[in-house]
Amino acid sequence: MKPILAGKVIANLLFEDSTRTRTSFSIAARRLGAEVIDLIGGASSINKGETLIDTARNVEAMGVAALVVRAKQSGAAAMIAQRVNCPVINAGDGRHEHPTQGLLDIYTIAESHGRLKKFDLGGLSIAIVGDVMNSRVARSGIAGLTALGAIVVCIGPPSMAPMSLKSLGTDVSRDLDAVLPRMDAVMMLRIQFERAEGGSAAGAAGASLVAKAPGIASIREYRDRYSLSVERTRQMKPSAIIMHPGPINRGVELDDDVADGPRSVILRQVTNGVLVRMAVLAQIANGKMANSE
Amino acid sequence: MKPILAGKVIANLLFEDSTRTRTSFSIAARRLGAEVIDLIGGASSINKGETLIDTARNVEAMGVAALVVRAKQSGAAAMIAQRVNCPVINAGDGRHEHPTQGLLDIYTIAESHGRLKKFDLGGLSIAIVGDVMNSRVARSGIAGLTALGAIVVCIGPPSMAPMSLKSLGTDVSRDLDAVLPRMDAVMMLRIQFERAEGGSAAGAAGASLVAKAPGIASIREYRDRYSLSVERTRQMKPSAIIMHPGPINRGVELDDDVADGPRSVILRQVTNGVLVRMAVLAQIANGKMANSE
Amino acid sequence: MKPILAGKVIANLLFEDSTRTRTSFSIAARRLGAEVIDLIGGASSINKGETLIDTARNVEAMGVAALVVRAKQSGAAAMIAQRVNCPVINAGDGRHEHPTQGLLDIYTIAESHGRLKKFDLGGLSIAIVGDVMNSRVARSGIAGLTALGAIVVCIGPPSMAPMSLKSLGTDVSRDLDAVLPRMDAVMMLRIQFERAEGGSAAGAAGASLVAKAPGIASIREYRDRYSLSVERTRQMKPSAIIMHPGPINRGVELDDDVADGPRSVILRQVTNGVLVRMAVLAQIANGKMANSE
Repeated sequence: MKPILAGKVIANLLFEDSTRTRTSFSIAARRLGAEVIDLIGGASSINKGETLIDTARNVEAMGVAALVVRAKQSGAAAMIAQRVNCPVINAGDGRHEHPTQGLLDIYTIAESHGRLKKFDLGGLSIAIVGDVMNSRVARSGIAGLTALGAIVVCIGPPSMAPMSLKSLGTDVSRDLDAVLPRMDAVMMLRIQFERAEGGSAAGAAGASLVAKAPGIASIREYRDRYSLSVERTRQMKPSAIIMHPGPINRGVELDDDVADGPRSVILRQVTNGVLVRMAVLAQIANGKMANSE
Repeated sequence: MKPILAGKVIANLLFEDSTRTRTSFSIAARRLGAEVIDLIGGASSINKGETLIDTARNVEAMGVAALVVRAKQSGAAAMIAQRVNCPVINAGDGRHEHPTQGLLDIYTIAESHGRLKKFDLGGLSIAIVGDVMNSRVARSGIAGLTALGAIVVCIGPPSMAPMSLKSLGTDVSRDLDAVLPRMDAVMMLRIQFERAEGGSAAGAAGASLVAKAPGIASIREYRDRYSLSVERTRQMKPSAIIMHPGPINRGVELDDDVADGPRSVILRQVTNGVLVRMAVLAQIANGKMANSE
Repeated sequence: MKPILAGKVIANLLFEDSTRTRTSFSIAARRLGAEVIDLIGGASSINKGETLIDTARNVEAMGVAALVVRAKQSGAAAMIAQRVNCPVINAGDGRHEHPTQGLLDIYTIAESHGRLKKFDLGGLSIAIVGDVMNSRVARSGIAGLTALGAIVVCIGPPSMAPMSLKSLGTDVSRDLDAVLPRMDAVMMLRIQFERAEGGSAAGAAGASLVAKAPGIASIREYRDRYSLSVERTRQMKPSAIIMHPGPINRGVELDDDVADGPRSVILRQVTNGVLVRMAVLAQIANGKMANSE
């Protein structure tokens, strides 16, 4: 690997921590020869009342080549990009976007279906199952998938997959079993227990927390209708793949045997995540990318 | 940049966390080719009852080239320096000193006023405004500024700028407006809400916390007398600069338009901080610096 | 040092944090040219309900050369090793094993007694003093020391050094003074206050916490019988050494003057820890090590 970022420093500016995304960006940057600096919310100057923008401008002033920004606020990366001169990469902003996750999902679909050369997803049908409404992963995926010609179907209860999603160019369905047989890829989303009030991952499987998951009457009902069990996967096309952005709530949205089964490309997504982030960083190094919303 | 620290490990030993100072030292060390190891208070062996000195001696025994020490205890770095053989850099010790911050402030003043070549500040007048008494930034700044011939005026209420500061070779004033027109640089200090009992940065602007800031009857009164507003800066010399060690409490000690205005060299201080720390680390690499109090 | 791990990434996967062990592995890996990624429990996806194995497989999928695993669960590293393809190094798993600590202890004994060339400890007698029962350090030490021909004596009250330890090939004694004169090395273990219910290191010296240390009626009684005081060390052979895995509870299991005295090789253990871990990582790089329980 040519160290095209040798001598450069990339800063991970994580106002919301994310071990996976941080690690993926760190490995990508280091493979390109860069040094990586982590600034993580809990330990940072934010605790001293500094704004996101002041923190970003300070880190820029220390001489970094790019900022990788993760934040709880939708629009945070774009807001920062307007106030600094160095490139800013959005690594997830609230419920808004998670562009590199979208790119790695699209890359994985293209790779699995032999579409890497022309990078056209025309004729492929992709289901996104779960809390699409609150998912930045889904939002970035939909933008890219529809742009490349894929048909996207959002599946979930009305609180998670409202009809208004059609404005993004997708179909909406409440019936996973009806849709599943014609899908080429199924992107399962995770139930974000940790975002539900008072909820915690530790108690995810616990009955006492069921009522706290967002918009779900009961985990059992959700599982019955929207999880991928081994039985349900038998309806799928032979070539169809199963995806998940991780971390998986095993036994909730995905059964163990499905997550680890032959259709699963979940770890392939992780591997491709590093490659996609290397590509994004390489574009920056070449000056081919400017900040835009 | 010649990698004069290639193959060396610099350890950031932060018994009190500081994202800015840690990041600045990390970038400085890496630019010189060193590897950096962070040991941060909350996550460290301190929780197992180990003393500062044992931690420092252990890290030294692992083979590091220098220790960068930050601690809540005044004198911590000097105490550690007496018990280890490797160089120790004081990155802030309680209310005592913060020498590299002092150096970067002095460097920035010299740079702004064209004094870098001779490094003499004779004839320049510098105001330090705010809680000088409890500020390690001020203490290190005063030592260097007076040594280089500058006139230093400490400005604040008696609890923050007591007459006893004159023993350090400075003037003391209660009247910012009277002093301001003849200053060449104004160093604004931050109100350290997080050090006040029960105070928190989040609530910094909140009226309920006003009484908790150290020695201040009300934030409004403090602002009226000691903050830099746009109006107040109009009294300043054309060449005068405004400095702040960060993070800024915007709207408390400094107005937005002043912090981001033409006189502000605040981000220049941040940039210079990396350069100054590179210089300190380079001196160490050359064996030109020994531990001394 | 030849950078035999250049271009490789080593991941520290710390489900239980440990500054010392993490730092030691990090320095070892970097000296061999590797990049190091830290994933630490509190900040990781574990909080999102992901299993140890999912976390490990994800990190592996990002393209790391080896996983260094620390966990509260006995057997965690072995369990992970069965599910990933990359090498896994056990950096401490619950009360089970801490193999690199065992290796560094053995290396330090061999070094101190001139046994490095043949690496045979026949004829040497080693005491392990304290809570042997709950110590992964002791368990790994015993396995290696007995394999190399040393005689090992476990010393402590019945709750900490039960007769059942004899099944590991060691002697057991309650009487430190009787055993001490014939020992060539004494490995002091630390009282792990932080593992006692409600105990904290901060209060380690406090009388109110005495009753909470595991299986000890009083710290005073423990000290009287099982700590190393200066007086007690006078009974030792001239060549005998004193070891401690750190961090030390000074004044509890070890007096200051003993910890810092001429017989102490405690910091030598720390230095050797980096060397031993470099050796382990180098073996991995050469493909000479496969995962096994």
